[in-house]
Amino acid sequence: MDNLQKTDRTTITRLPKRGSYDRNTIYSILDEALFCTLAYVRDGQPFQIPTGFCRIGDKLYIHGSVGSSYMRTLDTMRPLTCISVALMDGIVLARSAMHHSVNYRSVVLFGHPDRVHDEHEQYKALEEFTNKMQPGRWDDVRKPTANEWKATMVISFPINEASAKMRTGGPVDDEEDYNSDVWAGVVPLQLQRLTPQPDERLRAGIPLPDYLRG
Amino acid sequence: MDNLQKTDRTTITRLPKRGSYDRNTIYSILDEALFCTLAYVRDGQPFQIPTGFCRIGDKLYIHGSVGSSYMRTLDTMRPLTCISVALMDGIVLARSAMHHSVNYRSVVLFGHPDRVHDEHEQYKALEEFTNKMQPGRWDDVRKPTANEWKATMVISFPINEASAKMRTGGPVDDEEDYNSDVWAGVVPLQLQRLTPQPDERLRAGIPLPDYLRG
Repeated sequence: MDNLQKTDRTTITRLPKRGSYDRNTIYSILDEALFCTLAYVRDGQPFQIPTGFCRIGDKLYIHGSVGSSYMRTLDTMRPLTCISVALMDGIVLARSAMHHSVNYRSVVLFGHPDRVHDEHEQYKALEEFTNKMQPGRWDDVRKPTANEWKATMVISFPINEASAKMRTGGPVDDEEDYNSDVWAGVVPLQLQRLTPQPDERLRAGIPLPDYLRG
Repeated sequence: MDNLQKTDRTTITRLPKRGSYDRNTIYSILDEALFCTLAYVRDGQPFQIPTGFCRIGDKLYIHGSVGSSYMRTLDTMRPLTCISVALMDGIVLARSAMHHSVNYRSVVLFGHPDRVHDEHEQYKALEEFTNKMQPGRWDDVRKPTANEWKATMVISFPINEASAKMRTGGPVDDEEDYNSDVWAGVVPLQLQRLTPQPDERLRAGIPLPDYLRG
């Protein structure tokens, strides 16, 4: 097991049994989640941005317009950034109100942003990102032009200061409540992809690609 | 239309047409989302916590154990907190890689935490929270004991500095790309509640309640 080094910032103090510093566990959560939330400090104040992301090796990648205010802040000021990812797996219905809970798998990561200038690394990040959002998509679409590349910024974060936290399983009730008549269990939650909706300007005769079926 | 006052922190600079300061719009997003992310600054560093929440009137409520480190920080230090909520509605598949996008409805809110000491307000917040997680649940379960209340902290945030941002609709491609053979459209995303899974210690003969059917 390849554990990341704990730091003061990533050590889980509340219910530490739910925590993990295992790199594979952290990566599996990052790879399943489509979206993360970035937080950083500017002028002493907290700011947050929800955004898509992907992981390649030991780096987490985001991208955005060079005209975006937060991308420019990340690029020029390189603030320590806290990134969180949360997969919400279920609502845990206990027999008592206070033992209700949520099943989840989450990651919190700290790191400083690095703007990616290497063109090959930029390209790989965009390809990985696109295929994460929709597997199979990258090979099917028009690739970026030189001007589009100039308008886009790719930023990476090292993954070396992070922890995962998760809850699984059913409710844990007070022993005397197990005799009650209340139904107890878990309502699983899942972010699902529904039936693709064609663009109103889609040309006639273009079939739904195989990678979007089922 | 009841618009919140814009501030430097909540004014949307990137694609401002996607922004809204309308209280009803902000509330509808907050009421649909089950989870938010809190961010605050401690010792100059950003920290983030994903958590469940609810809204009653012009306040957003969270709760947690009095033993929780971040709840104690919010209670005692009352740091300016940035709260974000993001509903991810669809993956927008354009004909070119760079015009891919995401349909979303998000809120970013700034406020200082207030610990709730009024027992009636605490109770209403817990009731609302439980029924938001699972409509109909509160009336069915054992209510908190005095000791359980003592172990729980309820914190509110005023909703008066916030903005919403959203994207809807299909892809917007470069005009010359509309002739391409690439399939384009939207893959809708939805957080779905799946079939409830009974607790392994559920007593025989307890039926699934009506509010958990369908």
